[in-house]
Amino acid sequence: MAVKINENYLKLKSSYLFVEVARRESEFVKANPDADIIKMGIGDVTKPLVPAVIETFHEAVDEMGKSDSFMGYGPEQGYDFLAEAIIKNDYEKHGVSLDVSEVFISDGAKCDTGNIQEIFGIDNKIAVTDPVYTVYVDTNVMAGRTGEMGDDGMYEGLTYLKCNAENNFTPALPSEPVDIIYLCYPNNPTGTTLNKDQLKVFVDYAKENDAIILFDSAYEAFINEDDVPHTIYEIEGAKEVAIEFKSFSKTAGFTGTRCAYTIVPKELKAYDSKGNAVEINPLWNRRQTTKFNGVSYPVQKAAFATYSPEGQKQISDVIEYYMENAKIIRESLTDLGLEVYGGVSSPYIWVKTPNNMDSWAFFDLLLNEANVIGTPGSGFGPSGEGYLRLTAFNTLENTKEAMDRISKLEF
Amino acid sequence: MAVKINENYLKLKSSYLFVEVARRESEFVKANPDADIIKMGIGDVTKPLVPAVIETFHEAVDEMGKSDSFMGYGPEQGYDFLAEAIIKNDYEKHGVSLDVSEVFISDGAKCDTGNIQEIFGIDNKIAVTDPVYTVYVDTNVMAGRTGEMGDDGMYEGLTYLKCNAENNFTPALPSEPVDIIYLCYPNNPTGTTLNKDQLKVFVDYAKENDAIILFDSAYEAFINEDDVPHTIYEIEGAKEVAIEFKSFSKTAGFTGTRCAYTIVPKELKAYDSKGNAVEINPLWNRRQTTKFNGVSYPVQKAAFATYSPEGQKQISDVIEYYMENAKIIRESLTDLGLEVYGGVSSPYIWVKTPNNMDSWAFFDLLLNEANVIGTPGSGFGPSGEGYLRLTAFNTLENTKEAMDRISKLEF
Repeated sequence: MAVKINENYLKLKSSYLFVEVARRESEFVKANPDADIIKMGIGDVTKPLVPAVIETFHEAVDEMGKSDSFMGYGPEQGYDFLAEAIIKNDYEKHGVSLDVSEVFISDGAKCDTGNIQEIFGIDNKIAVTDPVYTVYVDTNVMAGRTGEMGDDGMYEGLTYLKCNAENNFTPALPSEPVDIIYLCYPNNPTGTTLNKDQLKVFVDYAKENDAIILFDSAYEAFINEDDVPHTIYEIEGAKEVAIEFKSFSKTAGFTGTRCAYTIVPKELKAYDSKGNAVEINPLWNRRQTTKFNGVSYPVQKAAFATYSPEGQKQISDVIEYYMENAKIIRESLTDLGLEVYGGVSSPYIWVKTPNNMDSWAFFDLLLNEANVIGTPGSGFGPSGEGYLRLTAFNTLENTKEAMDRISKLEF
Repeated sequence: MAVKINENYLKLKSSYLFVEVARRESEFVKANPDADIIKMGIGDVTKPLVPAVIETFHEAVDEMGKSDSFMGYGPEQGYDFLAEAIIKNDYEKHGVSLDVSEVFISDGAKCDTGNIQEIFGIDNKIAVTDPVYTVYVDTNVMAGRTGEMGDDGMYEGLTYLKCNAENNFTPALPSEPVDIIYLCYPNNPTGTTLNKDQLKVFVDYAKENDAIILFDSAYEAFINEDDVPHTIYEIEGAKEVAIEFKSFSKTAGFTGTRCAYTIVPKELKAYDSKGNAVEINPLWNRRQTTKFNGVSYPVQKAAFATYSPEGQKQISDVIEYYMENAKIIRESLTDLGLEVYGGVSSPYIWVKTPNNMDSWAFFDLLLNEANVIGTPGSGFGPSGEGYLRLTAFNTLENTKEAMDRISKLEF
């Protein structure tokens, strides 16, 4: 006998993407120490927490320093004050009612979208879009729901739903039966959206096939199109088939502060091996109460402050700032004759490389000739080849300067 | 086809313990609305965060509100400033050197002790002490490493290492081969310790049997005995066989603030199915970078403040306060002729019930006759039957009052 590793981890390909981006950047900087590099690759916010959040954050820290207001262990699912504010502001406003027991507050949508697969059987068939936020794929590889990665960059046993310019980034329904479908809209990395009719196709599929949709809605705050739903539960019957993940990270600049939440409706069911329906909400509750201890109290108070009238105004001003950048990127590149997607209801702009250049060649061109860093689309999956992602999270000045430099390039 | 649940969850027994405690308490309160109940059941701190922590916490919140000091995504493993302070204060002081890449900062030892099993194969044999912190057991049940729970309260396939007065709470080595051993010392729930020689027995076993020890050291700050190690790495060779979990929860009152860390030494290896040794540190790193996004920056700064000279003084004053309570409980109950364990290097006191009463009968007696709430030992596992846990986390006044009331009871 000897202690054995989880061998599924050996199937994982190293995450070369951002490592390789960093390597090429540092090589360039070494050769060109005076270059003024503009980073439009990383999907992280840059504006500080808004004043309403800072004020409440301070108040909560003070509470923690006094005997009569100190908070020890809180509920693993989060405090009701925050769950109630989430329901009122993020759901009732869109005609969706929820109970606080359906809201699970956590320290990140990455954690929740990564951990959610634990409550499902190992033999479920999984579908993801391609390109994809790699957490959905890697966590299923780790759990043993796939075989090895093939030469085509796809893991055996996973179903990939291709999204590219040919289908206008609207994934087709899986052609083979699947049990769980990960969807992220507004999409990371492509910045594209699904309208209500397009999302309804997936909800209807799930209902007809006893499947579940894991809906990552981390970029909901950036939606600017009327026919794009703000929650999957705007689609009739979605509570019976969908779990929704949301985050304060991009909505309110919480990437370093850490707060998110997951909605698991009571109506949602899956099956045991005898075919009995089992409610999913108590399973996720059991997972969270056993393996998680709740979000830091001052952080939950800080998140709560985003729902005050001042908080709402302040965070929407920040989002407008980023979206002005997105518009500039989108319009500038379009004027140059490039094919550009996303950037309307998303801080991400997905650029088709000119002249069928591959993703890394276009990355190198932008780095070397414009000193602008993007993210090669091929890093997000095989269907990302031939694209590059730019983000709107820089300053207005840098965004304009980057576009100016790119406009001087010859493709 | 239909989406399937993880059926291992159905094996879990509901966590009746604290639910049943709350039910009996509320029933008693209904019948005795004027009773002044003293709660000594729950393992949560009560003293506020110390001034040094509050001050730095505020500074970090201010940083988050300004453009030039705002922090977005940090390293999933935590910031070096905190990892370096941990190494210097919690390890080098005890003669143990570590590299920052061996320190993984997280939001809780519950999360880490719950998640760590993911990186190990499903076919490992697991040993736990009995009584036990139930997270170790439940997370292995969920992962599928056990069968059903038997009538004896033990899950099929798990190895239970009995700890009771008969063996002076020193678990014997497993009599059947095991691959992974969970140890928690100073122990929750019994409050007992292992000295260096006793812990060395387990380290030697692990080395001889290619096993791994998962060492939960969340109560290390309460150690008052010279021969009790402050880290398992004080034992020669332990880096080759042990992962250590520590937390700011009990050390610095962070139960509602959330910060902890896990040490995964580079020397630690497990095996693939071909018998090749595989380093564990990169596996945990991969787990954390894929499924976790780091601890809130202001919380990491707040934890860092516990290592300043003022912070160290202030948190040790709080621990002394709790330990004065522990001493009072231990001495008072001993004077009454009760058999009492723990409470020397731990905030937990493990009381043998008088006259072979069962745990719940003694719980009821204390509730009804002294209006004091403890936790029935049987809730922590079959070997906890006949014991009750009291905690030192109340005020000095309440602790004295509780002992006074108990001294008037007739057993």
